[in-house]
Amino acid sequence: MQDIFRYVDRHRDRFMTELCALVRQPSISAQNVGVAECAALLASQLEAIGVTARILPTAGHPVVFGEVRAPGAARTLLIYGHYDVQPPEPLELWKTPPFEPTLKDGRLWGRGTGDNKGQLFAHVKAVESVLRAAGTLPVNVKFLFEGEEEVSSHCLRGFIEANRPLLAADYAFCSDGPMLPNDQPTILFGVRGILGVEVSFQGANRDVHSGNLGPFVPAPAWRLVHFLSTLRDAEGRIRIQGFADAVVPPSAQEREALRRMPFDPVALTGLGLPPAAPGDGPAYFERLMFEPALNINGLTSGYQGRGSKTIVPHRASAKIDMRLVVNQDPDDIFEKFVAHAKAHGFNDARIERRGGFYPSRTPLDHPLGAAAARAVRRGFGKEPVLQPCMGGSDPDYYFTRVLGIPRVNVPYAPHDENNHAPNESITVEGFYAGIKTTAALLYEVAAL
Amino acid sequence: MQDIFRYVDRHRDRFMTELCALVRQPSISAQNVGVAECAALLASQLEAIGVTARILPTAGHPVVFGEVRAPGAARTLLIYGHYDVQPPEPLELWKTPPFEPTLKDGRLWGRGTGDNKGQLFAHVKAVESVLRAAGTLPVNVKFLFEGEEEVSSHCLRGFIEANRPLLAADYAFCSDGPMLPNDQPTILFGVRGILGVEVSFQGANRDVHSGNLGPFVPAPAWRLVHFLSTLRDAEGRIRIQGFADAVVPPSAQEREALRRMPFDPVALTGLGLPPAAPGDGPAYFERLMFEPALNINGLTSGYQGRGSKTIVPHRASAKIDMRLVVNQDPDDIFEKFVAHAKAHGFNDARIERRGGFYPSRTPLDHPLGAAAARAVRRGFGKEPVLQPCMGGSDPDYYFTRVLGIPRVNVPYAPHDENNHAPNESITVEGFYAGIKTTAALLYEVAAL
Repeated sequence: MQDIFRYVDRHRDRFMTELCALVRQPSISAQNVGVAECAALLASQLEAIGVTARILPTAGHPVVFGEVRAPGAARTLLIYGHYDVQPPEPLELWKTPPFEPTLKDGRLWGRGTGDNKGQLFAHVKAVESVLRAAGTLPVNVKFLFEGEEEVSSHCLRGFIEANRPLLAADYAFCSDGPMLPNDQPTILFGVRGILGVEVSFQGANRDVHSGNLGPFVPAPAWRLVHFLSTLRDAEGRIRIQGFADAVVPPSAQEREALRRMPFDPVALTGLGLPPAAPGDGPAYFERLMFEPALNINGLTSGYQGRGSKTIVPHRASAKIDMRLVVNQDPDDIFEKFVAHAKAHGFNDARIERRGGFYPSRTPLDHPLGAAAARAVRRGFGKEPVLQPCMGGSDPDYYFTRVLGIPRVNVPYAPHDENNHAPNESITVEGFYAGIKTTAALLYEVAAL
Repeated sequence: MQDIFRYVDRHRDRFMTELCALVRQPSISAQNVGVAECAALLASQLEAIGVTARILPTAGHPVVFGEVRAPGAARTLLIYGHYDVQPPEPLELWKTPPFEPTLKDGRLWGRGTGDNKGQLFAHVKAVESVLRAAGTLPVNVKFLFEGEEEVSSHCLRGFIEANRPLLAADYAFCSDGPMLPNDQPTILFGVRGILGVEVSFQGANRDVHSGNLGPFVPAPAWRLVHFLSTLRDAEGRIRIQGFADAVVPPSAQEREALRRMPFDPVALTGLGLPPAAPGDGPAYFERLMFEPALNINGLTSGYQGRGSKTIVPHRASAKIDMRLVVNQDPDDIFEKFVAHAKAHGFNDARIERRGGFYPSRTPLDHPLGAAAARAVRRGFGKEPVLQPCMGGSDPDYYFTRVLGIPRVNVPYAPHDENNHAPNESITVEGFYAGIKTTAALLYEVAAL
C-alpha cells in the first residue's frame, strides 16, 4: 500500500483540480440543468484513467457505468455514487458561488463537493492510484454512478433490474452522507425503509358556512382526526394490525454496537429540547435503527391564514411517512394500512401511496464490514464506528435485495458538510483519506 | 298607512337615487377605504329628513347615530344597521363596477346594495315617509349605524356599554342578511353564539428530519390529533364536561315554528351531497338553531405542498369555532375547554381565544314578533316565516343582553343577494317593500 499512498500524496493537487472540474459542472437533476453534460464529463474522467466508461440511458437521467477488469481476480466490487446534486437555492446564503469550487479553511466549498461528487471522485482516484502504482487492480471494479439520487432514484431500480448481468458483483460499496458528529468515520450496514401515504377525506364539493350549513355537511377534518387517532395511540404505539409482525429485533452483536455508538446527550438542546440522560444512548439508537415509526409530516384542512374563517372545510388530508425496519415490506404494510382503515369503518378514506423503499441491512458480522473497517483504519488512521443502520432511508435494497449482494456505506464527508444546504463542503483531508480508504478496500475485498 | 305608502310610491325614483349615492361611496372597513366619508354622507342624509345626526367615535370606525323624538310617544325603537361593506375583490368577477350602482333586471347592483346599505336606507326612507306624510312619528326612533360590522363589530360592544342612556329603547330592530330561499320574508328572533379557539402544540424549535431525528423530538401533530379526538367523538358528540349543561331545549311553540319552516330536501345536492328526506326539516332546523356545534375550520401542520417531505413538523394547530345556543356563555365554555385539556393531560396545549358572541334569542311569543309579522304583511303583502334562530352568529346579544331589550331581524334583501361576493344586489321591489314594512312597524310598535 505504501507505493499507492505515495502516489496519492504526489498527485494531491491534480486530484483536487480534477474534482473542481467536476464540481464546476452543474448537474441539478430536479431542474434538469447540466446533468447530461456532467455525465459526459465524468465518463471522460473515467476513460482518462483507463476505465471503460459508458453513458447508459434510464427512464430518467443517465447512469455513468465504468468497469475495470483485474486479470485473474476472483471478486468484483460494485461502487455506487451519484453525480447529480441538489438545487443550490437559496443563492443569497452562499458565501462562495455554488458552482465555482473554492479552497478555503482546509475545505473545498461548492454544491456537490460533499454530496456526492467529492466522495464519488475519491473512488475514481483510488482506482487510478492503484492502477498507476501497482499496474493492476486486485479486484474487478464496476462503477454505478446515477444521475437522479436527489430526485429519489426513481429510475434506478428499473435500470438495475434490466441490467443484472452488467452489474453482477460480490460486494457493493458506497460513500454518501456525513461522518459522525465528532468526524469519526462510521461504517453503515443498512437503512430503514420508508412508505409514504397520503390520506384524505372529502365532504361537500366546497367549503360551507359553519353557522348556516354546518350540521348538514360531512366534516372531513373530524373524520381525519378520528382516523388518525386509530393509527397510533396517545402513548405512541402503532395500532395497525400486524404492523410490527415482521420486525426482527437487534442481535446481541447489534446491541453491543449500539452500546458503542458515540452519544451526545446535549445534542438535542440545539433543537430547544432538554438534554437526554447520558445513559440513554443505546435505547435512543435502538429506536432510531430497529423500530418502525409512523410520522405525520403534513396536516391540511380549511383555513390556513391568520385569525379564523367560519367554514366547514370540504377536504382534510394528512401526509404520513412510515419508517420500516427489517423485514417489513412496504407493499405488505400498505395493504395493512388500507385494511386498518376498512376495519375501523373508514371506507370513505382516500388512501394514496407515495413511493416506498424496503429496509435493508447487511449483517454486522459480514466479512465486508471487517474489510471496510480495516480499510478505514489504513485510510483515515482512525477506528471506525460500526453502525448497524441509519435512521433515514435510501435505496440500499436495490443492492442487498434486488441484486442480492451485501453493501456498506462509509461516508467521507464531514459531519457539517451542509448537504442539501448552502455552503456545502468536503474537507481536503477527508477527500484524500477517502481515496486511500477506497484503495485499501480494493485489497481487503480481494482477500475475502 | 295609505298616505304613507302613497308617499313612498311617489318618491320611489328619488329614494333610489339617494341609495345610489350611498352605494357609490365606498366604505370598506377592512381596508379603511372611504369609511369616514360614508359616515359623513349618511349623517347628511339623516339631517336632510329632519333626523338629528351625530358621528360618534368608537375605538374603531365611527358610529352614525340619529334620533327623532315623537312628542308624547311612550315607546322608543332602536334601529340598527351598518354602513360599512365587504371588500369588493375579486373585481374581475363583477359584471358591473362594484361602486357604480346599476339598475338592471329589477335589481340595484353594487357592493353594499344588499349588505347592508339598501336595507339600512329603507329604514331611513321609512322615517322620512312617515314624517312627511303624517307630520310626526308614532314612536321615538334612534338609529345606530355602525361602521365595522364586516370586521366583526369589535368596538360596538364597548360603544354600547359606554352609551347606555343614549341608546335606551324599548325594542330593537334591524334588517340584515337575505330572505328565505323562496324569497319569503322571515322574522329572525335570535342567533347562535360563537366562540373561536386556536389550539396549538409545539415540539422542537424547528422541523427535523423524520428519519434521522424522528424518535427524539416531540410530535405536535400527533398531540393535536389525540387532543382533538377527546373533544368530539367519532359519532359527533361533544365530550367537554358540562359543555351542554346550559342548553335550553326548544319550547313547544319553537318546535311548532320549526315544523313550519320551509324545507328543501334537494338543496344539499348543489353541494354534491345526497338529498335529505322530505320529513327531515324539523330535525334539521332543530340542529341548526338549538344545538351547539364544535367545528374544525382549519388544521395546519408541517408540509402543505405536493408530494411529501419527510419531516417531523415542530408545530401543529387547529382553528375551532363553537356555535353556542341559549344559555351557553362563551366565557364559561372557554373555561370548560381549557379545563378539558388539563383533565385529559394536555397541559402542553396552547389554547388561544378568538373572540366570542353570546347566543341570543328573543322569545317567539314576544309582542315585538307579532308586531313585525303584521308590518311584514302590510309592507310585503306576504306571510312571514317565524324563525326562532339563525344558524350563524352576530352580536344580537349587544341588544338583548347588554342593553336588555328584545330584537328581531327582518331581512329585506333577496336570498341570492350575493353578500360578501361579487355581483351583490337588492331587488328594487324588496327595497320599497322594506320601506313600507319599517314604516308600518313604527305604528305596530307604538301600539304595543
